[in-house]
Amino acid sequence: MIDEKTALRKHKENNGKIQVVGKVKILKKEDLSIYYTPGVAFVSEEIKKNKELAYEYTNKGNTIIILSDGTRILGLGNIGPEAGLPVMEGKSLLFKKYGGVDAIPLCISTTDEEAIINFAKNISPSIGGINIEDIESPKSFRIIERLEKELDIPIFHDDQYGTAVVCLGALNNALKLANKNRHAKIIIFGAGSAGYGITKLLCFAGFDNIYVFDSKGIIKRNRKDDMNEFKYKLAKMTNKDNKELGVEEAIINADVLIGVSGQKDYFKKEWIPKMNKKPIIFALTNPSPEIEYDEAIKAGAFIVATGKSNAPNQVNNIMAFPGVMRGMLEVRAKKVSMMMLYDAAMAITKSVQKDLNVDKIIPSAIDEKEMNKLTLEIAGEIGISAIRDKNARINISKDEIKKRSAKRINNYINLEKYIK
Amino acid sequence: MIDEKTALRKHKENNGKIQVVGKVKILKKEDLSIYYTPGVAFVSEEIKKNKELAYEYTNKGNTIIILSDGTRILGLGNIGPEAGLPVMEGKSLLFKKYGGVDAIPLCISTTDEEAIINFAKNISPSIGGINIEDIESPKSFRIIERLEKELDIPIFHDDQYGTAVVCLGALNNALKLANKNRHAKIIIFGAGSAGYGITKLLCFAGFDNIYVFDSKGIIKRNRKDDMNEFKYKLAKMTNKDNKELGVEEAIINADVLIGVSGQKDYFKKEWIPKMNKKPIIFALTNPSPEIEYDEAIKAGAFIVATGKSNAPNQVNNIMAFPGVMRGMLEVRAKKVSMMMLYDAAMAITKSVQKDLNVDKIIPSAIDEKEMNKLTLEIAGEIGISAIRDKNARINISKDEIKKRSAKRINNYINLEKYIK
Repeated sequence: MIDEKTALRKHKENNGKIQVVGKVKILKKEDLSIYYTPGVAFVSEEIKKNKELAYEYTNKGNTIIILSDGTRILGLGNIGPEAGLPVMEGKSLLFKKYGGVDAIPLCISTTDEEAIINFAKNISPSIGGINIEDIESPKSFRIIERLEKELDIPIFHDDQYGTAVVCLGALNNALKLANKNRHAKIIIFGAGSAGYGITKLLCFAGFDNIYVFDSKGIIKRNRKDDMNEFKYKLAKMTNKDNKELGVEEAIINADVLIGVSGQKDYFKKEWIPKMNKKPIIFALTNPSPEIEYDEAIKAGAFIVATGKSNAPNQVNNIMAFPGVMRGMLEVRAKKVSMMMLYDAAMAITKSVQKDLNVDKIIPSAIDEKEMNKLTLEIAGEIGISAIRDKNARINISKDEIKKRSAKRINNYINLEKYIK
Repeated sequence: MIDEKTALRKHKENNGKIQVVGKVKILKKEDLSIYYTPGVAFVSEEIKKNKELAYEYTNKGNTIIILSDGTRILGLGNIGPEAGLPVMEGKSLLFKKYGGVDAIPLCISTTDEEAIINFAKNISPSIGGINIEDIESPKSFRIIERLEKELDIPIFHDDQYGTAVVCLGALNNALKLANKNRHAKIIIFGAGSAGYGITKLLCFAGFDNIYVFDSKGIIKRNRKDDMNEFKYKLAKMTNKDNKELGVEEAIINADVLIGVSGQKDYFKKEWIPKMNKKPIIFALTNPSPEIEYDEAIKAGAFIVATGKSNAPNQVNNIMAFPGVMRGMLEVRAKKVSMMMLYDAAMAITKSVQKDLNVDKIIPSAIDEKEMNKLTLEIAGEIGISAIRDKNARINISKDEIKKRSAKRINNYINLEKYIK
């Protein structure tokens, strides 16, 4: 485990973790005349005629912002924009290292919904996508809905979409091994960003027997307590008969429990024997899951996934967000659709068919080679999906998307060696 | 000269010119645990207790934005944010290469004054400074005045301050060679960003015999035509007796003409013999000056400076902005003061004492060694000046500022070799 002293020392050594550098060199006077005045004026004149050419002549198409207002940083809550910066810088490193994406970490000083929306709209000419990060829900949902409508670049919400993609990718394989299908009874614990995202994507994928619990109990259409427009959407998508069930009733004959509750040890081992045979447990809360892998297996679980790296089946967003963003940028996507996320999840599902077993329903997040392969596969799938969905600005083949993605990622792997 | 085809091809080759990379490497699993979860949480917790620690643990202190609304890009006018991007990316390259500064190019989609101010305020927790670029005046002046009041990071306006620093730095030497002093009669042509900035800095430096002309004629307190609050400020600082003079009258017995008019060939060669002896001509409009070097010399000018690199005495902002920003970031400056700009200008003046002559009143912008030395000198002077002015967050020696600056710049010179 990493101790506080090491983490602080390492962050202080270079004052942070990221920097802005050239993609081209300035070695002689002529370089300045090409990349700055007078040469740059020709480029500006071209883009003036057709602003879409910014994707050709500038880094717009590979630049995203990681946008947070500091209200829900990791598990630390509302700690303010400055305190959120190290997290967003870390995420920027991951976007670059694993996805070849140039991600600018921006923690802003307003928590006002309209102000955040305006900020994102104002910055949009300079970027090819937005990653919304660690903004409290349901404000984050409203911001994303608005930006999706009002901008023509993809608005990615890793807390929602990233988790959903990996979860569905893994779930498909778990169900296959357990001989279950889309009518499996699934209980989702948590209706924050992750719970909302997972439920939406599972419903889109055709799952039709889902129940969602939040801290106030089961979500149903006529519940009065602590509802909002998004919980109402969940109520319409799930709990078909609008049942009032306690947790202990709901888990009876359930096939799958998905924990994104934020609550350590929330799942009781006594629940598992009450589920249908071959119970599937996804206890995804970090860093401490709703139930530990060993305990769930001992209680009779057939397949268990957690967020922990020292147990099998680690569900980790890092499997999804680099490839998803990479693919969207390669085709200059205009938006994220459920179909695109579904196709990304299917890439995860398919990536472990050869060695599929109860302790390997997803690739290993710590096997770099496996991860790089998966990232390219996801990039290819989501890119092609965007093209099919008419959400892309350019039409290229899956192979070309993978080739261009690999080049971007390898460029950085080569440059990284010389960073000191 | 650079042709259009080469400029477009070179910009397209890599889709733009800049990228975001690590200052640290991620090579093993442990690195992820230090720089991302769980280690990063310790860092966030520290900054939560004291947000000033963002300067220690994140890249805030070396990050600036280059902020434009696309309304006055180069000499191209209001061409929109996307078309402004290549210019801002180029400036970002220069900030990094010559100043070791991480500069994020941001062209935003609003041209509304309040919206631009709000944007800058919202982004401020993530950055250590702002460079306002190519925003039309006088809107840019109002934006800067507001941001200077409302933020505690330096707001640099290169079009204003950068030009003024280099101009004053060169003018001091020209006057010395001509045996003139601060009572010299100076006529400034142009009251845009450059003219406003030069006039303010010259007045601060004690020059007391200045006249400013704009396209409507001489600026005076009771002029009715085309005045605004900033021209009124100019009127109060200059033209002591509030004279109504035409250009042809004003240049009689003038010691110095400074052209920042934007108008090619504006200065007539017949004017020069009408000036006081040893006439000094700064024809600074780019790319074509108010009068060419050769023509002005032939007409009797004692010293001539232009923006052109193929004539002596090239006045080029690149001498100032990298060092000015470098020095301010090293001391974590809270603002830019006139005193700081004055001290930066004095660093330029002093840098050529040894080989000072009529064709060498400033260092050569194309001599890389000379430029790097000057940049460190400016960084040291402006940093110390900020400390003296109580505009700095930390108190370090001039040598330490220069040492840290050199390290940042050399780090990039080393990394640049490996960019491909």
